[in-house]
Amino acid sequence: MENWVIKRGRLSPNHIALVADQQCWTFRELAETTLKLATKIHHQAPELKRVAVIGGNTADFYLLLASFHHLMVEVVILNNRLSSSEIRQQINISQAELVIYEKEFSQQVATLECPNVVLGDWQSSGELTGDFVPVTHYEPSQVNTIMFTSGTTGVPKGVKQTFGNHLASALGSALNLGMLPEDRWLLTVPLYHISGYSIMNKSLLYGNTVYLVGKFEPTLIGELVNTAQITHLSLVPTMLTALLKQPAFLSNRSLRCLLLGGAPMTAPLLAQCHKADLPVIQSFGMTETASQVLALNSRDAKRKQGSSGQPLFPVEVKIREGEAGVGEILIKGPNVSPGYLNGEMAKTADGFFITGDLGYLDDEGFLYVVGRKKELIISGGENVYPLAVENVLQAVVGIKEAAVIGEADDYWGEKVVAYVVTQNNTPLKAIDLNKQIGPHLGAFKRPKVYYQVAALPRNSLGKLQKNRLTQLTVLDTYVHE
Amino acid sequence: MENWVIKRGRLSPNHIALVADQQCWTFRELAETTLKLATKIHHQAPELKRVAVIGGNTADFYLLLASFHHLMVEVVILNNRLSSSEIRQQINISQAELVIYEKEFSQQVATLECPNVVLGDWQSSGELTGDFVPVTHYEPSQVNTIMFTSGTTGVPKGVKQTFGNHLASALGSALNLGMLPEDRWLLTVPLYHISGYSIMNKSLLYGNTVYLVGKFEPTLIGELVNTAQITHLSLVPTMLTALLKQPAFLSNRSLRCLLLGGAPMTAPLLAQCHKADLPVIQSFGMTETASQVLALNSRDAKRKQGSSGQPLFPVEVKIREGEAGVGEILIKGPNVSPGYLNGEMAKTADGFFITGDLGYLDDEGFLYVVGRKKELIISGGENVYPLAVENVLQAVVGIKEAAVIGEADDYWGEKVVAYVVTQNNTPLKAIDLNKQIGPHLGAFKRPKVYYQVAALPRNSLGKLQKNRLTQLTVLDTYVHE
Repeated sequence: MENWVIKRGRLSPNHIALVADQQCWTFRELAETTLKLATKIHHQAPELKRVAVIGGNTADFYLLLASFHHLMVEVVILNNRLSSSEIRQQINISQAELVIYEKEFSQQVATLECPNVVLGDWQSSGELTGDFVPVTHYEPSQVNTIMFTSGTTGVPKGVKQTFGNHLASALGSALNLGMLPEDRWLLTVPLYHISGYSIMNKSLLYGNTVYLVGKFEPTLIGELVNTAQITHLSLVPTMLTALLKQPAFLSNRSLRCLLLGGAPMTAPLLAQCHKADLPVIQSFGMTETASQVLALNSRDAKRKQGSSGQPLFPVEVKIREGEAGVGEILIKGPNVSPGYLNGEMAKTADGFFITGDLGYLDDEGFLYVVGRKKELIISGGENVYPLAVENVLQAVVGIKEAAVIGEADDYWGEKVVAYVVTQNNTPLKAIDLNKQIGPHLGAFKRPKVYYQVAALPRNSLGKLQKNRLTQLTVLDTYVHE
Repeated sequence: MENWVIKRGRLSPNHIALVADQQCWTFRELAETTLKLATKIHHQAPELKRVAVIGGNTADFYLLLASFHHLMVEVVILNNRLSSSEIRQQINISQAELVIYEKEFSQQVATLECPNVVLGDWQSSGELTGDFVPVTHYEPSQVNTIMFTSGTTGVPKGVKQTFGNHLASALGSALNLGMLPEDRWLLTVPLYHISGYSIMNKSLLYGNTVYLVGKFEPTLIGELVNTAQITHLSLVPTMLTALLKQPAFLSNRSLRCLLLGGAPMTAPLLAQCHKADLPVIQSFGMTETASQVLALNSRDAKRKQGSSGQPLFPVEVKIREGEAGVGEILIKGPNVSPGYLNGEMAKTADGFFITGDLGYLDDEGFLYVVGRKKELIISGGENVYPLAVENVLQAVVGIKEAAVIGEADDYWGEKVVAYVVTQNNTPLKAIDLNKQIGPHLGAFKRPKVYYQVAALPRNSLGKLQKNRLTQLTVLDTYVHE
């Protein structure tokens, strides 16, 4: 594969590549700007093999990321919401030789021992010298990026993502959604996350325009969708909920794909989208699969409510059989990471990635995720999938959010317990839990204890962090029977 | 890669795959129908490794071709305009074990010794038995099809085309043109040619609809483009010329891509297209590159008149230097055939296919083809590219068509001679050749002899067959000076 930035710069020189921070860059300008930046990086650190970067959704950071496409350097893209100690941990694991960061994040890197430099200083410093030769070709197996899994439990793992992974991801998505060079993709999910970074690579491959937005402000996003005639928008459900209150957003006629990821979509949210005639595509992906691997298209959303969709064209999904069709979800395809920096990536003998998620496939090949394998509760010898219980609790009048885990119990082995946030902090006793839950859950699945909390712990992408549940302050407790 | 027909049948079961012969098939129906046909073929010839097929642009033939996607069989797709002896030659070269043909072509296969069967008979004969297991996966290196190069000179060569070739071709084209699942592609170029066959594979990969048309009738095509809201149409220039006379065609508002291939486009034809605001993409491809490898997009057509365009995203083109930047055109990419059945495919040490065409790249990477290497005329030690002379002759008032070759000459080594068709068969003496040609061609490039003929020899795709020029009946001869 030829260098994507240079190739696209030649094929679509005058097409707008990026609109950000009140400026825009054509693909030729993007190629030129990133080549200059790559030249500087090369001259200041000619032996650089692995770099870590911290930045926001800014033009500078976008251009920095694209400039590494000219260098044979592996890029550790750090989550900019991490604490200093978390950053130190990930730098140690990745053995990055240098950290490049945006000024805004100075505090987080202040105590690092690793050499580090502010991005802006590099861009403005020194003269360009001419003897830098950019990478002309990539091997598909060449590692481009390393991202740490969001770390909802335990030690974060550094996922290696190759150029081949990113390419397959972009093509697989295109074979589902279609794509046109005149598409305009609004990038408001974090660039440090695969959902954001993959939009940059898609743009280089497809030749479409990216509108990069720094901060998610629903009013502004709603207006931008209209004024810029945005065709593609990637969101997590909390963002969508906020946008659904924006009249400007609801009146848009330009959106062709509204990609929802990061967390499952609730039935009421889906109903709202259908009412507003929004072209919602629910997507399922992981850092380990370099973004989306399954999609639930709008036309199937009602019929297949609760499903994560079908595997994209280049992707295979199967289930390692457990009980009643439910088993471990296995994924194979050219977008699956070759492995972690630290620790083994579990794969089957025939090359399927063992995701650690549990689920089943229906007769049309739609995947239903029932939960994480390690979250499976075995209570009195019966398997209880927390997600199934959570789905019922979330529909209970008076309950806003719920998370279910197992608690060690002498009698049951594990007992099912629920952490709930109630509407307006209604006391648990005021909610008719038994009556509302009884018809939907077998006795062994019903929570034995309810803990009322102020909020559920989530990471920056809205993903529930179950490992932090037991550290929460409990406002009220309700013991069943 | 999973079986494309089955995969697409699962992903887009209810979307229309094919409209042909007053019928239509969804992708599910296409999968089911082709599985049945594959089952029959398997049971009647379980050991089949290589089959030859002859058919027209009919639904039956389309379904037959797709059914081989379920079998581990290499398919020799024969040009249906070949004579019996040409077919015999290609069957011998390919060592096909069986010929499946449409009844219409019975005469051409009547004298073959190779086992052969009429397609219709197979489809209707016998019961389905259930123990056939279709191919579930393809290796990219698995040969899918063999097509003989159109044979403008010498012995035809059987080009092996792998699943990887066809995939890369489809994706490379999509990264230039864009694609949407709701696209409707009118297939009126021959299915036996890579330009037609590639449209079938694109449809399976992209999930778009194909409208298959048996016979090219300009009036009907013009109407169909409108009524079916066709978005994509592949043509050779002679077809386009005919369509430009159809008001229904000119008034269409649905076409997004009008792909021109097979032969270079003249300036007047291009001007007509621009006037009619047609989205013309000129494409350059070969049987050896599994269709299109370069494209000249509409936006560049005027600026780069005479160019074949830029290499598609996955394709690399370079020039093996000759004089003044002109040299042999070299092509590399995952869509380049692994080789011929008979004879070596010339490749460079770094894996570039040596096309045998001569050309140059401009500073923006646009390719200009100047002719076939073997057609290069060396006259008095000077290189003369026939194409350059032909372009000048074609602009001469009174000349309709011209073909230029070298003729052995004691004094010059080779001398430049032209075969011309004049407007209304005007005698050559009545055309002021010297005055019109003089300003545009150096003396050594000017034809020494003009032969007037009734028509130039072309193959079924409109490609000039220079090897047949010397066999033509000459109506008139004009010797220069």
